[in-house]
Amino acid sequence: MASRKQRIALIGFGTVAQGFCQILRGKQQYLLQQYGLDFEIIAVATRTRGIMFAPEGLDLQALLDLAQTNTAFTEHLVAWDVDTLIRKIPADIVVELTPTDLKTAQPALNYCRAALETGKHLILGNKGPVAQAYAELQILAQQNQLFLLYEATVLSGTPVFSFLRSALAGNQIFKLRGILNGSTNFILSELEADATYVQAVEVAQNMGYLEADPQADLAGYDARAKVCILANYLFGPTLNFDDIPCQGITEITPADIQAAVSEQKRWKLVATLQHQNGRINARVQPEELPFTDPLSQIMGTGNALTYSTDLLGDVTLTGPGAGSRETGYAILSDLLTINTGQSS
Amino acid sequence: MASRKQRIALIGFGTVAQGFCQILRGKQQYLLQQYGLDFEIIAVATRTRGIMFAPEGLDLQALLDLAQTNTAFTEHLVAWDVDTLIRKIPADIVVELTPTDLKTAQPALNYCRAALETGKHLILGNKGPVAQAYAELQILAQQNQLFLLYEATVLSGTPVFSFLRSALAGNQIFKLRGILNGSTNFILSELEADATYVQAVEVAQNMGYLEADPQADLAGYDARAKVCILANYLFGPTLNFDDIPCQGITEITPADIQAAVSEQKRWKLVATLQHQNGRINARVQPEELPFTDPLSQIMGTGNALTYSTDLLGDVTLTGPGAGSRETGYAILSDLLTINTGQSS
Repeated sequence: MASRKQRIALIGFGTVAQGFCQILRGKQQYLLQQYGLDFEIIAVATRTRGIMFAPEGLDLQALLDLAQTNTAFTEHLVAWDVDTLIRKIPADIVVELTPTDLKTAQPALNYCRAALETGKHLILGNKGPVAQAYAELQILAQQNQLFLLYEATVLSGTPVFSFLRSALAGNQIFKLRGILNGSTNFILSELEADATYVQAVEVAQNMGYLEADPQADLAGYDARAKVCILANYLFGPTLNFDDIPCQGITEITPADIQAAVSEQKRWKLVATLQHQNGRINARVQPEELPFTDPLSQIMGTGNALTYSTDLLGDVTLTGPGAGSRETGYAILSDLLTINTGQSS
Repeated sequence: MASRKQRIALIGFGTVAQGFCQILRGKQQYLLQQYGLDFEIIAVATRTRGIMFAPEGLDLQALLDLAQTNTAFTEHLVAWDVDTLIRKIPADIVVELTPTDLKTAQPALNYCRAALETGKHLILGNKGPVAQAYAELQILAQQNQLFLLYEATVLSGTPVFSFLRSALAGNQIFKLRGILNGSTNFILSELEADATYVQAVEVAQNMGYLEADPQADLAGYDARAKVCILANYLFGPTLNFDDIPCQGITEITPADIQAAVSEQKRWKLVATLQHQNGRINARVQPEELPFTDPLSQIMGTGNALTYSTDLLGDVTLTGPGAGSRETGYAILSDLLTINTGQSS
C-alpha cells in the first residue's frame, strides 16, 4: 500500500475532520520521510453543505479554507447520496465522523456497512456504531480482511487502544477504570470551585464541552458508550450497551462535593469495566474517591484510564479527552496502525 | 524467526532475570497462541554462581528452583568467561541484566559489544551502557542490523519506549518531565508523613528500594542516567551523561516539605528533558510542584512521565518504577518489539 497515495473519504466535516486535515497538511513531509506514507483525501461528505469527490485528490488548503466558512460546497460536487458515494469511489479508507446517535447508530451504521462491504478499511470517530453494532461490524471487517479502528471514540486522541495493542502487549487486562467524559468532569471541578450546578452547566455549554443534547453527557450515556466500546475491544461483544448500569452527575449537590473535599475525597464520574470469575461487568456511576486515587486528581476536561494488568499492576494513561487537533490525531494514529499492520 | 524457538542468553540472574523467567513460564502457551512465539533460555551467566549453557535449552522450572537458593550451579556448567560465552553460543538474543555501574558501564559494556559483534539482538536492563556508551552501541546495532532495546532501564516495565514508538507515533515530542526514581519519591513521601530523613532512608533500605550505594539514588545519579537514556533515544547521543546538571534530595528538610504542603505544594525530584531552539537540555533537581501538577500526586515508589507533544499536548503515563515481575515484563516487551519488527 505504501508505494502509492492512500485515498481517504471523509464522511462528516466537523471539527474532528478539520483537525485531521490540518494535521495532514502539517505532517505530509514527515509522514513520507518517516513512514513512506502519502495520504490524499478524495471525498468529503456532509449533510448540509453537499458532497465532494475528486479522484485525483482534493486540495488540502482548499479544504481548510472551506472549514472557515459554513457555505455550501461549489466544486467537485456529486449528486450521489452518501451510501452510494462510499460504495462507488475507489477509496482505500473511509473515515466516519458524523454526529453520534447512541440509540440507532444511524445513519452512520449504514455508511460503515457500505465501506466494509466494498473493501474499504473503516476508521470511526462516531461512537454509535461501535457501541451498538460492534459484533456485526467486526464480522464484516474480518470477512473482508479489513481494519476496523476507532481510536477517536475514547479519550479523543489519547491512544487508549493503540496502548493496549502495542505498549501493553503480553499483559492480561482484568480491569479498566477511568474518567471518560470531560464535560462532566469539568462541571464537577466547577462545582468544587463554588459554582452552582446551573452556572457550571452554562459555562460548559458556552465552552462547547457539552453535546447538542446535554443529557448525553450529564446522565452518563457518553461514558457508558465509551465503556461499552472498551468492553467490545477487550472482551468481544458480550455486553449489551443498554444493559450497562449508568448513573450520571445530575444528583450530586455542591454540598456533597464540599463534604467530600473536607474529608480529602472528591466526587468523580467513574466508568468501570471488570473481568471477574468469567463474567464481564461494566458500570458508570459517581464515586467518592480519596485524594490518593490518581483518578481523583484529574480536573477540568482531563480524562484518564487506569489499566489493571497481570504483569505491571496498575498503569494509568492521562491525556486530553476532547479537542479538534487532539481527536484529529486519533485518525492519524489509526492510519498508522493500518500501515504498520498491527492487528486490531 | 517465529518458526523456531528463539534462543535467549541471560547475563545476570538477579531479581529481574528471575521475574522474567517466571513470566516466561506462565505465558508460554499464551505467547505461542497469540504471537506464534516460542522462547528458550540456553544460557545463564552469573558472577558468583557459575555459568550454564545448554544448546537444547535450560528447564524453566529448574531455573526458578535455582532462583530460590544462592548456591553455585551444578549442571550444564561451562568454564568460559562471560565474553567468550556470548561470542560462542548460538543465541538469537542476549539479555544484559548485570548490576549497573554508571561510571565505567563495565563489565556490561564489553558484554554488549560481544553480543552485537556476533550478530545477537541486545536487550538491556542495565543502565550503564545505554547512558554512557549509546553512540557506540547504536552504531554497532545498526551496522549489524540488530535490535538494541532497553525498556527496563526507565520506569521498569511501564512501557515508556514502546509508548513512544507505537502509541504516540506521528507526534513530535518536545519535552519530557518525570519522576524517574522510586526510592527518592518514597523517601519524600515518608518525610511528608513525619519521618525524619534518617528514618525514611532506613525504611527505604529495609524495603530494598535503594541501590547498593544509596547515593546513586539520593544524589539523583539514577534519575540522571534515566533522563540521559531518554535523551539518547529521542534525540540521539547529543548529551554527555556527566554534563547533565543533577541535584538530589539530600538537602531537603522535613521543614521544607511541611512548608510546601501548607501551600498546597509538594517537593518532588523531577527529571526534565527539553528540545528548545535547536538545543537539548536535561536536568534533575528537586522542584516544588503545585498539587494541580499531576506529578505532585505520585506518591511512594510510583513513577510517572509526562510527554509534551505537538498534536496531543501533555500525555502522562503513570506506573510502577520497580519490581521483579514488573521489570521482568520489560524484557518480554522488548522481545515482542523484536518480533513485531517495530524499529527502535
